[in-house]
Amino acid sequence: MDQLMRMSAVEQARLIRTGQVSAPEMVEAAIQQIERLNPSINAVVLPLFDRARAEAQRVTKDAPFAGVPLLLKDFLAEYAGTRLTDGSRFLRDHVSSSDSELVARYRRAGFIIVGKTNTPEFASKPTTEPELFGATCNPWNPMYSAGGSSGGSAAAVAAGMAAVAHANDGGGSIRCPASWCGVVGLKPTRGRNPLGPGYGDIGAGLICEHVVTHTVLDSAAILDCTAGVDPGAPYWPPPPVRPFAAEVGSAPGRLRIGFSTAPVAQAAVHADCRRAVLEAARRCEALGHHVDEASPRVNAERFTEVFTTLWLGMVAWAIRDWSRRIGREPTADDFEAHTWKMFTLDASRRPSDLFLAIQDMQRMAREVAPFFTSHDVWLTPTTTQPPQPNGWFDFDPASPQQATQRIGDVPKFTAIANMTGQPAISLPLHWTDDGLPVGVQLIGRYGDEATILRLAAQLEADMPWRSRVPPQVTT
Amino acid sequence: MDQLMRMSAVEQARLIRTGQVSAPEMVEAAIQQIERLNPSINAVVLPLFDRARAEAQRVTKDAPFAGVPLLLKDFLAEYAGTRLTDGSRFLRDHVSSSDSELVARYRRAGFIIVGKTNTPEFASKPTTEPELFGATCNPWNPMYSAGGSSGGSAAAVAAGMAAVAHANDGGGSIRCPASWCGVVGLKPTRGRNPLGPGYGDIGAGLICEHVVTHTVLDSAAILDCTAGVDPGAPYWPPPPVRPFAAEVGSAPGRLRIGFSTAPVAQAAVHADCRRAVLEAARRCEALGHHVDEASPRVNAERFTEVFTTLWLGMVAWAIRDWSRRIGREPTADDFEAHTWKMFTLDASRRPSDLFLAIQDMQRMAREVAPFFTSHDVWLTPTTTQPPQPNGWFDFDPASPQQATQRIGDVPKFTAIANMTGQPAISLPLHWTDDGLPVGVQLIGRYGDEATILRLAAQLEADMPWRSRVPPQVTT
Repeated sequence: MDQLMRMSAVEQARLIRTGQVSAPEMVEAAIQQIERLNPSINAVVLPLFDRARAEAQRVTKDAPFAGVPLLLKDFLAEYAGTRLTDGSRFLRDHVSSSDSELVARYRRAGFIIVGKTNTPEFASKPTTEPELFGATCNPWNPMYSAGGSSGGSAAAVAAGMAAVAHANDGGGSIRCPASWCGVVGLKPTRGRNPLGPGYGDIGAGLICEHVVTHTVLDSAAILDCTAGVDPGAPYWPPPPVRPFAAEVGSAPGRLRIGFSTAPVAQAAVHADCRRAVLEAARRCEALGHHVDEASPRVNAERFTEVFTTLWLGMVAWAIRDWSRRIGREPTADDFEAHTWKMFTLDASRRPSDLFLAIQDMQRMAREVAPFFTSHDVWLTPTTTQPPQPNGWFDFDPASPQQATQRIGDVPKFTAIANMTGQPAISLPLHWTDDGLPVGVQLIGRYGDEATILRLAAQLEADMPWRSRVPPQVTT
Repeated sequence: MDQLMRMSAVEQARLIRTGQVSAPEMVEAAIQQIERLNPSINAVVLPLFDRARAEAQRVTKDAPFAGVPLLLKDFLAEYAGTRLTDGSRFLRDHVSSSDSELVARYRRAGFIIVGKTNTPEFASKPTTEPELFGATCNPWNPMYSAGGSSGGSAAAVAAGMAAVAHANDGGGSIRCPASWCGVVGLKPTRGRNPLGPGYGDIGAGLICEHVVTHTVLDSAAILDCTAGVDPGAPYWPPPPVRPFAAEVGSAPGRLRIGFSTAPVAQAAVHADCRRAVLEAARRCEALGHHVDEASPRVNAERFTEVFTTLWLGMVAWAIRDWSRRIGREPTADDFEAHTWKMFTLDASRRPSDLFLAIQDMQRMAREVAPFFTSHDVWLTPTTTQPPQPNGWFDFDPASPQQATQRIGDVPKFTAIANMTGQPAISLPLHWTDDGLPVGVQLIGRYGDEATILRLAAQLEADMPWRSRVPPQVTT
């Protein structure tokens, strides 16, 4: 049974469609894997097994992913009748009263939601160690962080608890844990997946929804099920010219790929992350692409300040929005110290600070755009560091700035795509000598998932990763 | 010569193209009209006559509007080598160093910029009475306000100083002065016209750029020249299926038109504004459309607060953005009291207030969207009041809330389209017994200028307004 969850969602769907495995059997396989592996990984924090078993009894076979188990990240996605905590004590008793549009689309596509995955409080760190549910462990080494904020989802997929887990990405939260857990993480174009009806955008467009998967095809085929503007949406990215899944395996042509191992804003980059990119660039060249070392010119001076202003505002907004929704005033006791600190900092800034930050963020999109007239893809490390131990992001009184800097530095390559709205994918193309995964990021033009999906699929065939299985999982 | 400027821009372009009038003659006609009429109207505050004459000598005839005079509103639009003040003493010495993308597109389309038009300070009132340049007068009665914030542009076109004047609209600033001056004012879909390279969006998407014109065709044909995403833009509205100009005169089919004479948030509506809508609704029915009294359901309770939060943040942001651009700290002496008050109020709010307001604004777009599944067009008054005298919006110590309320109430029908991003057009379909114009507004679906342009052109043919000429102008 454990092999079923190492298959892709597309493969699982085919087994169900052809009658080789029933939907209840498939869901049971996921539940068994979660029950077996989760005690040492702590990826799934809210199991929904009974409900999943009931849902599996009544799947309609014509849905593309009928009966395929899916895990929901415990952040943003409302699933009627289930808890949604955003990783926060403040919401420990919140139960959703309706499905958000994305969840409705997952369900319409046939997915069976088997549980919810761990997230740092309000998804605001690149590691998944909330006080509410405890740390998620990296399946490749349980002493290590799974990354974040979609660390629960990435760890669950990497460990083989499900082939697909929902995730979201406001600064790298799909891609960073994908990189650290050795799975595929696609952040689509801003507005590609719905945020309604509760939200228009979040963080002025920083946050995008999607999944982490074993394969590029899964990330593409699931996007075909969920993409599309929901009524009243603020962003209308150009629709794809053909299904995203059709890009996987299509010849990408001779792409102009610019690679860079230095982020747009200053941060130390680990040798393994640099090596991962150089090797991928070499392979891209061998595949016939035009490859050069090149990078957009961005006003790096404002980068960190802008992102910090947006992020603090977003966390404070989330707390106040939840406060008015659940009718309870926030107090320090309801939150982790780190989160409460962000909330209090909000009061020291003004709305015009936020508008200035939004303007500068949008200017960065203007600055990045010309690069994509001379290049089709921008190739970078996903993270500035390979996986680090749990605790590495903790506040250290001996070095008070260290935690903030680490939290800010790890996603330095990913956050730019949130600021510009462009699609970006992390692929597990490199492993450290210790056997830890290191992701490589492909950033595409606004609205152009197609090109990075074609290239990603080509690299997946050229540098396959699926034979690698976390050692902790197989023993 | 004065008849030339009562023609449409399309007609002017044809005269030049066929050699009946040369570009220098056309520009000279505009200059003569401005010199003749502006002393009593005060619409043009920065003449650019010498430059326009020089430009007219070197027009390239293949541009669609080669040699046609255009006035730029003195707000947002940067035109290299010319002053841009945003109606503020703070910027009285600012000279633009480059063209904004919109201005570059006007010039590429062949327009000759003959001057800049008056605006209230930072375009933040529905009347055009700045301290910097003094009040613009309504050509239909010079005691009356031209509306705002594009009052200079609307008055100039109404008076016949030019066939087309640039305008922008963050809460009704194209449509309200179009209504009060008896011209056509189209606010396109959010993101339709470019805001780059200086801006991504402004006010979280409130502000849109376009023009005021005599005819529907001009508003459509000029949009064909300027529409289209500029590199790195945040919003990508669906491109038109055919040129906007081609919609003008095309049969609209049997449209489902919902009309309303009550704004989504409480405000008194003048009988003339109601009458204008009822008459337009009756004519729509006679034209074969399905017409009923209907309105989207919007959370009116938050409407005014949300809009105020966005507006205050936007004015404070504009001041601080200009401050960092010109390298000078703002002081109370640099601004009108009303503007400085808005700036100081910014410090009493937090970034999360702004994010909450943006969320609620975007929720309103969600709330409005379903209306447009049952209806194609939403027909309303443009303004809650017909033209009012200059001074009517002034602060009155005897009634301290009155000015704020009047400023907030007049655009109550227009601001909703800025919040949802939908296109909307004001047409001069009604006149008061005193001969003052009253506009009617058509709001269309997001991205669907086509439907309101087809209906607008049909109403233009059915209820023509071009034979009406402001009495002050002809004498």
